[in-house]
Amino acid sequence: MSAESRFLTLLRLLANDPAAQGLRDDVAVLEVGGARLILTSDTMVEGVHHLPADPPADIGWKLAAVNLSDLAAKGAKPLGCLLNYALSGDESWDAAFLEGLGEALARHAMPLLGGDTVQMPRGAPRSYSLTALGEATGPVPLRGGAKAGDRLYLTGPVGDAGIGLELLQTMPRASGPLVDAYRRPRPRLAEGALLAPHVHAMMDVSDGLLIDAARMAEASGLAVTIDHIPLSPALEATRGASNAVQIAAARAGDDYELLFALPAAVKPPVRAIPVGRFAKGGGLTLKIDGVAIPLPDRLGWEHG
Amino acid sequence: MSAESRFLTLLRLLANDPAAQGLRDDVAVLEVGGARLILTSDTMVEGVHHLPADPPADIGWKLAAVNLSDLAAKGAKPLGCLLNYALSGDESWDAAFLEGLGEALARHAMPLLGGDTVQMPRGAPRSYSLTALGEATGPVPLRGGAKAGDRLYLTGPVGDAGIGLELLQTMPRASGPLVDAYRRPRPRLAEGALLAPHVHAMMDVSDGLLIDAARMAEASGLAVTIDHIPLSPALEATRGASNAVQIAAARAGDDYELLFALPAAVKPPVRAIPVGRFAKGGGLTLKIDGVAIPLPDRLGWEHG
Repeated sequence: MSAESRFLTLLRLLANDPAAQGLRDDVAVLEVGGARLILTSDTMVEGVHHLPADPPADIGWKLAAVNLSDLAAKGAKPLGCLLNYALSGDESWDAAFLEGLGEALARHAMPLLGGDTVQMPRGAPRSYSLTALGEATGPVPLRGGAKAGDRLYLTGPVGDAGIGLELLQTMPRASGPLVDAYRRPRPRLAEGALLAPHVHAMMDVSDGLLIDAARMAEASGLAVTIDHIPLSPALEATRGASNAVQIAAARAGDDYELLFALPAAVKPPVRAIPVGRFAKGGGLTLKIDGVAIPLPDRLGWEHG
Repeated sequence: MSAESRFLTLLRLLANDPAAQGLRDDVAVLEVGGARLILTSDTMVEGVHHLPADPPADIGWKLAAVNLSDLAAKGAKPLGCLLNYALSGDESWDAAFLEGLGEALARHAMPLLGGDTVQMPRGAPRSYSLTALGEATGPVPLRGGAKAGDRLYLTGPVGDAGIGLELLQTMPRASGPLVDAYRRPRPRLAEGALLAPHVHAMMDVSDGLLIDAARMAEASGLAVTIDHIPLSPALEATRGASNAVQIAAARAGDDYELLFALPAAVKPPVRAIPVGRFAKGGGLTLKIDGVAIPLPDRLGWEHG
């Protein structure tokens, strides 16, 4: 058990309100005055969640996008957000960060409502948190609602952002669609809103397809088999589609496509790719071209 | 203009929703489904907002208390909060932090609903943010509503926390009521709820009486005269009540008493100390024993 898992166990003792969902989902669901609020918060730290050399406008965009993605996965409409920002000591950097953040907020109609700005001691790594509020527009799909027999779908391919990050680590000036996928993820708000009334379970794929599918299965008390790993044309053109590339794509994080469970008889109301199915039992099985493949040691991005 | 002020100017361009109050109050006021939500967020950084040697349980308590104090100043009932926490690498420290945070949350009926936990690179200063949601139970007093002729009141004395901090800086093992005031501030939730329907303006005194009174006057387009600086018996016993001590108390931060404006004919519904009055015009005047005193160069804690 990691230090973060032990900390989370202590946090759960404080999070004993039903709205907290036992901290087992990416969001809290709070009922207030007839509305259901969806609450989520994400922190990004330089050198941990992004490369120190990433352009500040992209980091600002991404901080907004990852929070919006959590709202999207619950079919929620963005209401607003609060920013906690540690001034970096470089005003043009800070201004560019805000420009990218503002672009993502404007694009998705999420106003900035408040927050707090602090000075960090010299030499501290940059860090920033955004807390987003959304309003549920219908049923709120959680992680744990999948049923045996449900199909598992993705709203798009996986692996682009992970390979984009890999490219940047060896070629800092790399560009193109894979780098864009890493730096400017697009939250699937429209898709989430259309899907929410129909799905049994939904979450965004922020840590990797394998680990996030395993989490959905565990929360639902089911087994899941992944039988297809969708790759983008850009990824195939760069890396091919070998088993190794498919496995790498399935354990890469930062994609922010929606992962959802739907009864086999229901056609998804948005463009979606079937990637697996749920069954009674437990655990994760990975098949490529119909053949079961040993799982990699690390399924995806595990915090801590 | 400081780097923080310039950053705030850029932030205001993004905060163009009426709920953001132009980032000129400590809170946002968001109407959702018939409820009015009060939103606030505070970040604390080791070495900036607290001493590195402060006990972790007290830091956790204080992070909750400063956010609750912002809710108190708007007469709001706590609904819940989200914690952004950077693991310190010291598990017993983190556990003690959560214990103090949990104590303050339980005492004031504010459930933890979610948040995000991250690992910071080794050697980074500790930092933590809390975002609190409250629900308005009646009119929401802002900073800018004082009227000419209003009396200005405080719910308690000022200076205890500031002198407590000073004591700790020279005597790290100091204890007693002044140190307690610095480490375990008490948010005035009950007082705030009783005051909110009656006051013209209200805020908590987090940065110092002089600067916060000047801000209330400026936001209200008025002049304010402070004619009394209330000291606690503990502070007087430690430092006396000379003009120098009174001025130090009036520019010390971290007190978290409520500062409010009430028509001269209205008796405050809670125990409160009259400290000044508003008049047409602008600016801040300080009087001690009826005599105008030159203002200190620095009125209080100015961020950035």
